[in-house]
Amino acid sequence: MLPTLGFVVLWTSPKKTDNMLAMSEPNPTLVWETITAHQRSAALKAGVELGVFDALSKGPITAAELARNAGVAERPMRILCDFLAVHGLINKADGHFCHTPTSAAFLDSHSPASMAPTLPFLMNDKLIKATHLLTETIRQNRTALDEPLAGDETREWVTFARTMQPMMRTAAEFIAGVILRAGMPAKVLDVAASHGLFGITVARLAPQCEIVALDFPSVLEVTAENARAAGVRITLLPGSAFSAELGTDYDAVIVTNLFHHFDRTDNITLMKRFHAALRPGGLMVILEFVPNEDRISPPVPASFSLMMLANTPGGDAYTMAEYCQMLDAAGFGTREIIDVPGSAQQLIVASA
Amino acid sequence: MLPTLGFVVLWTSPKKTDNMLAMSEPNPTLVWETITAHQRSAALKAGVELGVFDALSKGPITAAELARNAGVAERPMRILCDFLAVHGLINKADGHFCHTPTSAAFLDSHSPASMAPTLPFLMNDKLIKATHLLTETIRQNRTALDEPLAGDETREWVTFARTMQPMMRTAAEFIAGVILRAGMPAKVLDVAASHGLFGITVARLAPQCEIVALDFPSVLEVTAENARAAGVRITLLPGSAFSAELGTDYDAVIVTNLFHHFDRTDNITLMKRFHAALRPGGLMVILEFVPNEDRISPPVPASFSLMMLANTPGGDAYTMAEYCQMLDAAGFGTREIIDVPGSAQQLIVASA
Repeated sequence: MLPTLGFVVLWTSPKKTDNMLAMSEPNPTLVWETITAHQRSAALKAGVELGVFDALSKGPITAAELARNAGVAERPMRILCDFLAVHGLINKADGHFCHTPTSAAFLDSHSPASMAPTLPFLMNDKLIKATHLLTETIRQNRTALDEPLAGDETREWVTFARTMQPMMRTAAEFIAGVILRAGMPAKVLDVAASHGLFGITVARLAPQCEIVALDFPSVLEVTAENARAAGVRITLLPGSAFSAELGTDYDAVIVTNLFHHFDRTDNITLMKRFHAALRPGGLMVILEFVPNEDRISPPVPASFSLMMLANTPGGDAYTMAEYCQMLDAAGFGTREIIDVPGSAQQLIVASA
Repeated sequence: MLPTLGFVVLWTSPKKTDNMLAMSEPNPTLVWETITAHQRSAALKAGVELGVFDALSKGPITAAELARNAGVAERPMRILCDFLAVHGLINKADGHFCHTPTSAAFLDSHSPASMAPTLPFLMNDKLIKATHLLTETIRQNRTALDEPLAGDETREWVTFARTMQPMMRTAAEFIAGVILRAGMPAKVLDVAASHGLFGITVARLAPQCEIVALDFPSVLEVTAENARAAGVRITLLPGSAFSAELGTDYDAVIVTNLFHHFDRTDNITLMKRFHAALRPGGLMVILEFVPNEDRISPPVPASFSLMMLANTPGGDAYTMAEYCQMLDAAGFGTREIIDVPGSAQQLIVASA
């Protein structure tokens, strides 16, 4: 007779890893999955780097063929692909691997929506290191990175500019639509312009509009390249959003994924600068991760806070109530929040 | 009129992250969750290191109180706890955090089943580094770590011995039951004894049995400590399973979580040594992660392959068919596989 256990354990197949299941019975699989979750990130990156997802576009394929394709041995490729299949990133049937709808749309670089090109930024060494330093970061109440990923010119922002367009295309089209809905703009400021896609998309729909792209000099080289490739004219404004001469009389200021890097005081400073640059009634259009007031939903915007905790001195994912306080303090008038279709992000539109 | 997208996107709330959902529609949230999964591991570790889960035992508590308790600022604690709640590891209601059944059972160190003590091994720097080196490991077809986590004496095995008992208690009781089912043993060899729990559990139920614990000298210090604390006598056999003089006439050889570190050739070498040490009809009792023949189910054993890929020169999670081949080659007779209740692992029992 074995001793009995004083608790119920369930090492059954994990079917969910979110809030929904956390409720009923103790689930050691959830703990194990979380302890080992870093392997999922690494496996996805390895799959991209070794051409696994691209090779699946030709149809079902064996680990041996994928290994030959990547110039590696079969054993590690088989283990990688099995792992990707366990975690729902690819399919396996009869010893052959093939795309899921998700991997076909978002991991195969043949797809226009592929997120594979974003990995050199989203999984760069600094971001991974920041995650590894999380406890120390919490103790310091600021990133434990020596060189934070926030308001300074670092090479990661050039990587960002070179890689992040695929995730921003939908939002760029949506933002341009929102700006044009208010009338044909004559002058638009694209703050932290990066790849330039937001300004470029406006320029395509409003060819007479002057687009001013603000970013660090090293980043604006990428902006300029992309504008040339798109056949649109962009005015380059090198510098920091905190100190550059922004100019005045803008119909719209586009502020995408900037405020989450800073604390509220810094954001109010920035918002006041943008307010002063707008014509009366002009629009500040903010693209952001905006969690609900409970701060634990929806999962993607709510989780984004931790990325800012890990990588910045004082950033956060702010709720709409917090945005309203900051907008009030900076003198903005009406504001609305809109879900961006096909994105986990929201648009906050505030009028000067 | 905005341009339409050539694909369907669903940035809705993620409800599942496993194979089940990978089928129907493209799900960018799954990709985003996988890219950022390393943050889930780090958040769990930070929660343990900062006493979050232990503090929840007193009932609902605010981030401010948790922060005071840990001696850190409120902002980073609030972000950490919200993140843990998003990912189902704790609950949040009315601004207060509290245990889920899972965190109470497996993350609060007051619980006898807590996995918190295992983190110094399961999330040690070397394991995390190995994950980070995955692509290079696949290219080399062996861990890219300078000092692999396999058959050599490294300080991680001392950490393992000091931390991994909580995850092994259930299995140790089950294994002892299986051995005693075959008759009261006189002599049992506990290979890679580590914390010693497997041998100690047998010793408690069979006080006349000689337990021989084989492990590296630095590890056996922990084994001896634990045996003393448990009030049982253990014979210490320092050395490697590949080269130590094992002795003969064992009724059972317990081989827990060893074979997954090595390739099949090495495992056959080891099995032959264990076969020679057993009396005729004696049992080799193997505790392992044994995936199904499809190698993608169940999720925990199937995923374990990747941990061995990342950390060892040639390890793997072997299927039962592969174990049968190795057992045949080593001269073993009948064998059975048993699910270990309350564990993601299986027991393979083979007779000499």
